Amino acid sequence: MKQNPESLTIMDQTHAQAEFTEADRKGIYKAIFNRRDVRGQFTSEPVDDDVLSRILYAAHHAPSVGYMQPSNFLVVKSDEVKRRIHSAFVEAHEEAKAMFSDEKRELYSSLKLEGILESPINICITCDRGRTGPTVIDRTQLKAMDLYSSVCCTEFLVGCSG
Amino acid sequence: MKQNPESLTIMDQTHAQAEFTEADRKGIYKAIFNRRDVRGQFTSEPVDDDVLSRILYAAHHAPSVGYMQPSNFLVVKSDEVKRRIHSAFVEAHEEAKAMFSDEKRELYSSLKLEGILESPINICITCDRGRTGPTVIDRTQLKAMDLYSSVCCTEFLVGCSG
Repeated sequence: MKQNPESLTIMDQTHAQAEFTEADRKGIYKAIFNRRDVRGQFTSEPVDDDVLSRILYAAHHAPSVGYMQPSNFLVVKSDEVKRRIHSAFVEAHEEAKAMFSDEKRELYSSLKLEGILESPINICITCDRGRTGPTVIDRTQLKAMDLYSSVCCTEFLVGCSG
Repeated sequence: MKQNPESLTIMDQTHAQAEFTEADRKGIYKAIFNRRDVRGQFTSEPVDDDVLSRILYAAHHAPSVGYMQPSNFLVVKSDEVKRRIHSAFVEAHEEAKAMFSDEKRELYSSLKLEGILESPINICITCDRGRTGPTVIDRTQLKAMDLYSSVCCTEFLVGCSG
């Protein structure tokens, strides 16, 4: 995907500014206090490449252990691929149902836990655990630090998707 | 710690607002593009309880798997406790040095990787892996989802500490 001029414009406007204004802080807190899981009510319009590029570009700025940047971002638009992902969810969901006690199983089964087919795109964030070699700064004793870096990517991506 | 009126004021001002203005977005991207690790140049002033309460309150709004909220936040101000944490770091750092190849060890040893003693407070974010019982929604197959929730807490806390 092309590097999006919109992303670069936003970065140029905001980069290397040490001071945060009240308006800046309000934007950050607004995102924090209004964050919620969304598993439905998606737009039926396709997502513009400009918008997609902007949020992926921001996600690349998430912190990663030893600057390992272990994540790839797979953008899924194909209905066929989405159906295969959804099938994997259905299988896992059936397994999960069996883990709940009798009284909770009915409630669990009634919850909507995904929006794979309804959403115009799926984004799969991976973690390449061998990237940059076996020894990584700050990932010496705790090998899962690469996974935690991918979690941070996810958080950055979601945080600017509003 | 008391619930801080400043936190509540910010939440009241920003909660349940679905629309994000250009100024809001700029604040969020500014935080993303200017984020960096800080391991020195800390203020020598104590951190106000109002400020501390505000960022801890925001961190409590991080997403958690099945609303498990597995984290506790331990605020360390005691120099004696900080020294014990620092000793644990020094021990781990010595172990880590041995993991690097000869040519990289010298560079690794020269890096400043912590600011435990210089920072006015340390915040330790825990993950109580048994919280809310053994079976948690969306943590059925992947047990580490609780750890990833604690990573999100950390990201929220750091994101509004500027």
